[in-house]
Amino acid sequence: MTGKDHYIFGIHAVLEAAQAGKDLDKVMVKRGAGSDLLKKLLGVLARMEIPVQQVPVEKLNRITGKNHQGVIALLSEITYVDITTLLPSIFEKGENPMILLLDGVSDVRNFGAIARSAECAGVHAIVIPSSGSAAINADAIKTSAGALHRIPVCRHRDLLTVVRFLKDSGLKIFAATEKASESMYSTDMTGPAGMILGSEDKGISTQLLKQSDSWVSIPMKGIITSLNVSVAAGIILFEMVRQRGE
Amino acid sequence: MTGKDHYIFGIHAVLEAAQAGKDLDKVMVKRGAGSDLLKKLLGVLARMEIPVQQVPVEKLNRITGKNHQGVIALLSEITYVDITTLLPSIFEKGENPMILLLDGVSDVRNFGAIARSAECAGVHAIVIPSSGSAAINADAIKTSAGALHRIPVCRHRDLLTVVRFLKDSGLKIFAATEKASESMYSTDMTGPAGMILGSEDKGISTQLLKQSDSWVSIPMKGIITSLNVSVAAGIILFEMVRQRGE
Repeated sequence: MTGKDHYIFGIHAVLEAAQAGKDLDKVMVKRGAGSDLLKKLLGVLARMEIPVQQVPVEKLNRITGKNHQGVIALLSEITYVDITTLLPSIFEKGENPMILLLDGVSDVRNFGAIARSAECAGVHAIVIPSSGSAAINADAIKTSAGALHRIPVCRHRDLLTVVRFLKDSGLKIFAATEKASESMYSTDMTGPAGMILGSEDKGISTQLLKQSDSWVSIPMKGIITSLNVSVAAGIILFEMVRQRGE
Repeated sequence: MTGKDHYIFGIHAVLEAAQAGKDLDKVMVKRGAGSDLLKKLLGVLARMEIPVQQVPVEKLNRITGKNHQGVIALLSEITYVDITTLLPSIFEKGENPMILLLDGVSDVRNFGAIARSAECAGVHAIVIPSSGSAAINADAIKTSAGALHRIPVCRHRDLLTVVRFLKDSGLKIFAATEKASESMYSTDMTGPAGMILGSEDKGISTQLLKQSDSWVSIPMKGIITSLNVSVAAGIILFEMVRQRGE
């Protein structure tokens, strides 16, 4: 936690912030708490796809000496955008959508570096899941060279739902995975596209792989045959740029 | 300095190590020292292109309590290779040389990440200058995912001399710079090639730019228009892989 993080304390204050549409990174709730008001809050948070984390009360006490009533919200450093609102606006501008979906990239510096490359490649939006993704904190923004303030970030509970929405909207979904038999160089990625990249350790989830239209890989030489995820992202995004020749 | 670093103390011991061909990362010499034996040592080190650093005696005393005689050498984590020996062996194997020259990449993690990408792209060797380059320490090797033990690293006093040697040997020298008007996508990089990448802050030196056959850039969209150097390296190296289609 850096000094730049901002918190909101107390059930009512957090409820009001959420209902006012303030961007909350996550809400920490005292483990075992269960009042009616808290249940109402949790319902609102779930609807708004804001991550909730159950924590020991000591963790909350370390963050503030004030009366937090078992609830502390962490204000987001960026403004999230809804992909279902954003995508139509891309089509309306006559642009060829290029959406990047990150299935659980959890390292803050990798996440920042990917955002930087995505901005440079003209990616329209980065989509991340509500849980299991890197915190978008001051470090992430610094590593992104400010890109996280430039490129829309969409946070949704479930990437599968997003993928279905993108496919229904006419996008082709690519999954970058070493399981692919097809090289990205011989795959046509010129049309409206969503590209999924997986986490550093587990790759892309089986369900997302199944929902993808096409798997693509970076052809490897040498013995190590494994790239850093942020480097792999850069290579794949700029291959899309090359193919599109825009 | 990590616990994994290894040192050699004393003028005689360092002289013997250098003459025996041991790979030394650098030699630290007490500022102001000037015995005849030391001059002999400095002559040997210069001939062998081993970096020498003048330091206050306190720095040497902090490294060891033993009698260092004003000279401490840091043993290298890797074995360096001479490019003039290596290049003919690449041609002899019937391979198409792809050499990466790093003009002062000084961040250890960037250097490690670049080595990892280079190994995955089938680069034959990385050439670095004796001074101003990242230390090849345990951190660099870890970030490289072990690539620094796989890919030959050539350390020479002067990259200009190396570039002339490579050109005389039939390689085309490319400089990756945002000053280039030509996109790398429309540049033929299929033949024997040396690719120069510059430092994070200063880019490629003017002299090296002048000696290059061709300048290439990664076409940028967005507003930031600046990639992390390790990501840029990955993108350029894999564009070479794509063009070569090997």
